[in-house]
Amino acid sequence: MSPVIAQDIQPTNRLFEQIIAKRDFDALDRVYTKDARILPPGAPTISGRENIKSFWRTAVDSLGVSAGKLETVEFEATGDTGFEIGRGRLDFVSGAASLEVKFVVVWKREDGAWKWDVDIWNTLS
Amino acid sequence: MSPVIAQDIQPTNRLFEQIIAKRDFDALDRVYTKDARILPPGAPTISGRENIKSFWRTAVDSLGVSAGKLETVEFEATGDTGFEIGRGRLDFVSGAASLEVKFVVVWKREDGAWKWDVDIWNTLS
Repeated sequence: MSPVIAQDIQPTNRLFEQIIAKRDFDALDRVYTKDARILPPGAPTISGRENIKSFWRTAVDSLGVSAGKLETVEFEATGDTGFEIGRGRLDFVSGAASLEVKFVVVWKREDGAWKWDVDIWNTLS
Repeated sequence: MSPVIAQDIQPTNRLFEQIIAKRDFDALDRVYTKDARILPPGAPTISGRENIKSFWRTAVDSLGVSAGKLETVEFEATGDTGFEIGRGRLDFVSGAASLEVKFVVVWKREDGAWKWDVDIWNTLS
């Protein structure tokens, strides 16, 4: 099996962007592992994919997010685990200034697919 | 070589706490890899150990940090890379309320020692 590289994880990141644009949160099944953890700024850690779906549904609705965009800065995998450093941007329906974030995602291979297992981010400025 | 577990990384985390308490920032050589990256909230990514030393020196001075405390919540290693999820607390000389954070650290074995290679955190509330 050839090593997993940054290019290989792009489909999952594009899927996340589509989910935000279409508000199709059930498709997060294909982004996060079953027992994933997210660490959002200003809140406790949220564990488990169902809770993570609720978080994104609520956050996108309450903030009025119109689009999300992710960019991989670094990616490295060893065995069935990898980590990514990236940048992200959220746009808003109100036309308010975009929110720029940076993030670290720990990736895991689960049932043959590479998914986000740990997801933490914070603001760029 | 037996697998690296959460207990094995505790001396490095205790060293970080001592560095903050003693303001001995040069000892961060034993905490961060040479090419480490930190992703502090509200700021761009900082790369390289010397720049990271400057960051902590300035942050501890300007915020008046009196103590830092780290707690490992999860740790898992594969080969020479691992990741940790944790909680942290900063106390202040002013007696102001402590700052509670959560973090993800990507650990790397460098020259035989396990060190922080990527360090990102955000606030708990």
